[in-house]
Amino acid sequence: MEEKGILQAMPVMLAPFTDPLNHEVSEAAIQYGSQTLRLTKSMILHKFIMLMGKGVDAVFIVSPNVRLESEDCKDSGRHLIEFSQVDIEMKGKDKRAFMDLTEELYVKMIAGLKHTCPDELAYFRRKLTTPTRPFKVYESKELLRKYGEGWEGILSKASSEPFWVLDHTREFYDREDEKRRGYYHNYDLIYPEGFGEALSGGEREYVYDEVIRKMDERKMDREPYGAYLELVRQGKIPRTSGGGFGVERLLRWVTGSSHIEEVTLFPRVPGKHIVI
Amino acid sequence: MEEKGILQAMPVMLAPFTDPLNHEVSEAAIQYGSQTLRLTKSMILHKFIMLMGKGVDAVFIVSPNVRLESEDCKDSGRHLIEFSQVDIEMKGKDKRAFMDLTEELYVKMIAGLKHTCPDELAYFRRKLTTPTRPFKVYESKELLRKYGEGWEGILSKASSEPFWVLDHTREFYDREDEKRRGYYHNYDLIYPEGFGEALSGGEREYVYDEVIRKMDERKMDREPYGAYLELVRQGKIPRTSGGGFGVERLLRWVTGSSHIEEVTLFPRVPGKHIVI
Repeated sequence: MEEKGILQAMPVMLAPFTDPLNHEVSEAAIQYGSQTLRLTKSMILHKFIMLMGKGVDAVFIVSPNVRLESEDCKDSGRHLIEFSQVDIEMKGKDKRAFMDLTEELYVKMIAGLKHTCPDELAYFRRKLTTPTRPFKVYESKELLRKYGEGWEGILSKASSEPFWVLDHTREFYDREDEKRRGYYHNYDLIYPEGFGEALSGGEREYVYDEVIRKMDERKMDREPYGAYLELVRQGKIPRTSGGGFGVERLLRWVTGSSHIEEVTLFPRVPGKHIVI
Repeated sequence: MEEKGILQAMPVMLAPFTDPLNHEVSEAAIQYGSQTLRLTKSMILHKFIMLMGKGVDAVFIVSPNVRLESEDCKDSGRHLIEFSQVDIEMKGKDKRAFMDLTEELYVKMIAGLKHTCPDELAYFRRKLTTPTRPFKVYESKELLRKYGEGWEGILSKASSEPFWVLDHTREFYDREDEKRRGYYHNYDLIYPEGFGEALSGGEREYVYDEVIRKMDERKMDREPYGAYLELVRQGKIPRTSGGGFGVERLLRWVTGSSHIEEVTLFPRVPGKHIVI
C-alpha cells in the first residue's frame, strides 16, 4: 500500500449511517444521547468521503465489520458476524485500474507468503500456486446461463486460480451503466478450489440524481444518509473505484481450512454461542 | 513491531466481556440471539488470552475503542467516544521491559516523523524534539503530595519531553505489589506541553486468587467474565506486561493541536452531534 501511495486511515465503528448491504442482516445499533449510531457493516461510504481530501488519491482501512447474519449461514464455512475487512478506494480510477491493483496485491501476497512462511504452509499441508496475471474475467449473466444460480460455487470448485466475475446487481453505490441499464460496473474476485468470494468492489455512483434514483429503487430510507447525500448533492464526492477483502476468508484460502473459525482467534460464527 | 517480533492480531468489537475501565461510561452493548455482546472498550483481556498461544511472545492490535463518555469531557480537548488504540502486550516481561520498548518506539516515531514529514510539521508550525532516553520517571503519590490532584496537568505543562508516572490505583488486572498492598506495578506515559496522558499500562495480575480478590474489592459482577476467569483459574493466562496508546492523542501531540477533533477524520466528541 505504501509503495502505491495508498494512505491508511483509521476505522470508525459507530456512525449515523453505514453500508446498507445487499442482503438482510439484523440491525446492530446503539443509542448515544439522542442519536442512533449504527455499527459499521463496511467503511464504504466513509471511504468515499475520505477521498474528498485534497491530495488524497487513494485510501485503505483495516476495519472490523459487524454483520449480524442469521443462523442459516452457520455451516457455510465462510460467514462470521464480525470480521476484519481491508477496504481500498482510489480516486479517478476505473474498474480495470482497481482490478490490476488487486491482482498485483494478491500475487505479491501469495509469492511473499510462500517465501516467508514455508513452515506454516507445511503445517497446513498447503501447496499454493502464485496466481498468473491477468486473472480470468467472466460475466455473471453468462455464468448464470451456463451454470444456473449456483455458478459461484461450481466455477470456484472447478478453478485452480482466483478469477473475476463482472456485473452484479447490488447496492445503490455501485455504478450502473448509463446506456445499458441493468449492467453494473462492479466485480467480485472469487477464490479457486471452492473457497468462494474473496473481494467485492466496483466503480461508484457519484452523481446525485443517479444515487437518489437507485436508493429509491431499493426502497431505502434516505434519512440516516442525510449528511452523505448532501455531500453528493454538492458534487463533493469524487469518482472512485475500489473494493474490500475479508482477512479471515483470505486466511481460510491460503491455509486451505474448511471452516473460517479455524483461522480466527475469536470466531463469531452466526448462531453460535460466543465464549470469549 | 515487526523488527521486535511483535505479531499483529485483528481486533474484535463484540464480546461477552470487555475492559471494565477505571471510570464510569455509559454501557454500549447489542443483543444477538440470547447473548449480550459488549462493544470493545479496549482489547486488554483479549490480548492476555492471545498470549496463551505457544510461540506467541508479544502481540499488538490496532482497534477501535468505544467509550461512551459523558458530555462533561466535551471540552477536554482529548476525549472521543470512539478512538483508535494501539494495544501491545508482551509475555514474561516486567514493567521496565515494556517502558523500554515504548521509549524506543516513541523515539523512532518522532525521529521518523521529523525526517519524513517536514512539510506537514511546518504546516502545523510544529517544532518537535526527539525525546531523550531514558524518559524521566515519577511516582504518582509523590506528585500528589507536591502538586495536589491536578498533578498530571501541572507537570505535563511544565515538561518539554514525555515522562513516566508509576503506581496508579485502577483496574483489577494491573498488578498490585504482594508485599506492599496499594502499590501498583503500572505506569502512565504523559505527553509534555500540557497534552496529558499518552499511554497506560502495567504488569498484570495472572494469579487466580489475586484476580478474584481485586474484582471483589471493585464490586464487579464476575458473570460476564466467566470464560476469562476459567482460563485464569486453570493457570493458562501467562505473566505479561503491556500498554496501549491512542492514535488520535498521539496525532494531537505531534501536530500541537488544541482539540483532538482537529486531527480526527470522523470525530466523535462526547455530547456532540455526530454528522458523518
